[in-house]
Parts: sequence; C-alpha cells; structure tokens
Amino acid sequence: MARYKAVVSYDGSSYGGWQKQLNTTSIQEVIEQALAKMHKHDVAIVASGRTDAGVHAIAQVFHFDSEMKIQEKHWIKALNSLLPKDIRIQSVKQVTEAFHARFDAIGKRYDYLISNDILNPFKENYMAKDAHKLDVAYMQECATVLIGTHDFTSFTSNKIDPRKPRVKTITRLEVLQEKDHVHMIFEGNGFLRYMVRMLSQTLIEAGKHRITKADIKKMLEAKDKHACRYKAVPQGLYLVRVDYADDEEQN
Amino acid sequence: MARYKAVVSYDGSSYGGWQKQLNTTSIQEVIEQALAKMHKHDVAIVASGRTDAGVHAIAQVFHFDSEMKIQEKHWIKALNSLLPKDIRIQSVKQVTEAFHARFDAIGKRYDYLISNDILNPFKENYMAKDAHKLDVAYMQECATVLIGTHDFTSFTSNKIDPRKPRVKTITRLEVLQEKDHVHMIFEGNGFLRYMVRMLSQTLIEAGKHRITKADIKKMLEAKDKHACRYKAVPQGLYLVRVDYADDEEQN
Repeated sequence: MARYKAVVSYDGSSYGGWQKQLNTTSIQEVIEQALAKMHKHDVAIVASGRTDAGVHAIAQVFHFDSEMKIQEKHWIKALNSLLPKDIRIQSVKQVTEAFHARFDAIGKRYDYLISNDILNPFKENYMAKDAHKLDVAYMQECATVLIGTHDFTSFTSNKIDPRKPRVKTITRLEVLQEKDHVHMIFEGNGFLRYMVRMLSQTLIEAGKHRITKADIKKMLEAKDKHACRYKAVPQGLYLVRVDYADDEEQN
Repeated sequence: MARYKAVVSYDGSSYGGWQKQLNTTSIQEVIEQALAKMHKHDVAIVASGRTDAGVHAIAQVFHFDSEMKIQEKHWIKALNSLLPKDIRIQSVKQVTEAFHARFDAIGKRYDYLISNDILNPFKENYMAKDAHKLDVAYMQECATVLIGTHDFTSFTSNKIDPRKPRVKTITRLEVLQEKDHVHMIFEGNGFLRYMVRMLSQTLIEAGKHRITKADIKKMLEAKDKHACRYKAVPQGLYLVRVDYADDEEQN
C-alpha cells in the first residue's frame, strides 16, 4: 500500500462542486468512480479543500492510497481515459504515508476573473461579467487593507463552525487590468468558505466606486458575519495552486 | 414591415449546428423562438450559411423581417434577455428590403485553433487538441498551394449537390504559432461544406510531416471527392466574419 499525491485540473461548469453530495454530480465522486474502476474496489480521495459549484481548478491537489504499482505516466493515462474530458489529471506522485492533502497544505492561490465584454458567449462559464469599467488602480489600493493577517469573520459564510479559527494571512492580493478582463490574484496560508468570492465582489464594488477603502476597513474590523453582503459568482473563480512544505515543483 | 440584419456570436458546444433539424436543438430554432416570443407570431431567419454541430461563431449574420419598430439597443436587449447565454446578439440594424444574408455575402473568415496542451480541460470544446508539435512554417508553406482560385471538389462533403459550383477563391490562409496554440486563418469568397475543416486537418497532417506539399497539390488537382480523407473536429472552428458589399463596419 502506498500513498499518492495527485494534481487535477477541472472545468467546474457542469459539476455541483468538489464535495460529494446528493442530487448533483461532484468532481470527487467522478474521480473516485474512475479509481474504483481501476482498483475493482472503492478508493477514497482527500482534497486540499472543497471548491463550490461552478468553480474551476487549474491545480487542485488530492491524495489516495493504493496497492497498485504503476508508473506516473501510466497513472495519468489510465485515470484520464476513465474520466470525462473536463477533468484532467496532471500528475500522480508517490509520497510518504504521512502526507495529507488538506492538513499539510501551507498555502493556496486563487484567481478571480471579471470580463467587461458582456456580449461574449464564450466567457459565460469562465469569468464573472460586469458592464461597468472597473477602477483597477482603486481596487488595488483597497486591496492593501486586506493584505496581512486578519480575522476574516466578516468575509465568510454564516454557516461557519464557530470553533474554527477565522484568522488568515493574505500574502499577495493583486488586481491587474488584462487585455479583455480584470484579473485578481489571492495568495495566502488558507481561505475560509466563500472568502475569496466575498473579497472579490467587495473589491469589484470598490472598483465601481460604490464603496470606499474606509468602508472595506470598517467591514474587516467589524468581524461580523453580516458586515459583508457581497459574493462574486462562482464561474470567475479558479483554484490555481496548493503549496506544501518541501514541494519542489507544482503544476 | 422592415428587414433587419443581425450579427450573432455563439458558443456552438451545446447545439446540433445552425440549421433546424430533428432530434437536436439548433441555433436557428432557438433564435426563431426568441423572435416568436417578441412578435407573438413566427418569424423566419436566414443566415449567411450553416455551421455544423459544435462549431462556434464570433459573428454569424442573419436577416429577418419585422413589423416592430424598435431601436437597435432595445432589439439587442430584448433578444438577449430571451436567448440562452451561449447565444448573444451583437447588433441589429435595419437594411433595405433587398438585403439577403446568404446571397449578398461576398466573403467570409473562418479561424481554426489547435492546442498542444492536451491535459487542459478548459479547451475541450474550444480547440482541437493534438499531442504533436506542429511544424507551423511547413504548414504555412503548404498553404500557398491552396491560396487562390481553385476547384475544391477534393475538399468537401461527398453529399455535395453536383450542380453547385465548387470553384472558390481563398484570399488569405495564414498559419500562426500563438503562445499556447496554432491558429489558422481562412479568408475567401465562400467555402464549401466541410471545406475549412478538411483543409485544416490536411494542413495539420502536413504539420506532422505525414504528408507533403506535393501530396496536397495532388489532392487539390484530383478534383475528386475521395482524394482527401481528413476532416478536423468541429470544436476548433470559428466563423469569425461575414462580409457584404458596402459594409462600413462589421462586428
């Protein structure tokens, strides 16, 4: 028996999110089915964290245990031949038995994309759309309030477990004007449920001059789950990377 | 009663092509349903030409007749509010009664995209995928054989109407290496059924050095519907533009 760390890229458009649940197809379930077909028995996978319905991943990480002895390139080929085309395994590497995709993650990067091109049908599932021209320089200035270590209670779901710590560190928050969209980059040691989407929409509202940098500071300092009523749509969100200690390379 | 010329952009992934047919949803049918809702009676639309199942359009053109007096921006809003998000009307302009979207078209541009990034789940419906590194310079050299006025019988569907002329003029055929894909641009006075996809795959085979420039010349000169057995997948194909005489602007 050996433990494997896998990196997977997925287009979340057709799924009810990462986590298995009733009445919708989850990415976890589809990958576990592919593994079960290979193994002729159930194989559970554990991800670095969930992604919500419609959210995409460039490089989500999960681990699983297997008695099969297969070379990396054959793992990739075998799994991808059993998976739908919108879920693609990028790498499968043997790791020590102690490795845990969730507990060992020390950092994550999420990107959020907003298109101004509201009549473009190709971006429908892949970017948020906003007819307003966003003030990217002001969004970047507002972002400075959020960078650093804070209690992000104001920027998470109401349903959060009260025993869980809500102090997180954002190490990088950039707002970039690309050719045909606005691109936000969030890096930190971890993110609470809905946190990236709530912060994204808050910055978008600032980009439309509907709220100010002072408003955002007040929201953050309130540490109140009712302080922020903004949440950006899922299709603009991408889990880009999960970092682990002594990671040499990451897809 | 007035005639209108409309430009529409669509993601063809979920449709059985432009043209109405049994057992599949067509783009034509969906747009006609939206017009019928607005008009409270049937309204037929006529496109510049069909696109096949899975093929996309940046700017397909169609015409229709209407007794409704509406400003352009309201036509766009009203139709888009009734259409699914993967079909977006870009413009609606009143034209003379003599205008005909198919008969008056004097030129078209189609683009074909091939990705080398076969593990990328986001390109699945939007590019052809090929694990080979294509020799783009050689593809461009082979393309010179095809530019100009030729009988393209070798590069069209078997089912073509024998009475229809198969002489077409390609005015531009470029093969470009973009950052993460190969991009082909076809411009001409018109294209036969499957012609762009058959030419695309022929050039792709040349890009893999499976056939030569001389083979392509022989295929073209054969004027034989069995001469070319290549046809690229539909998801890489985009109808980019339809040209009309005295067009000032085109979306």
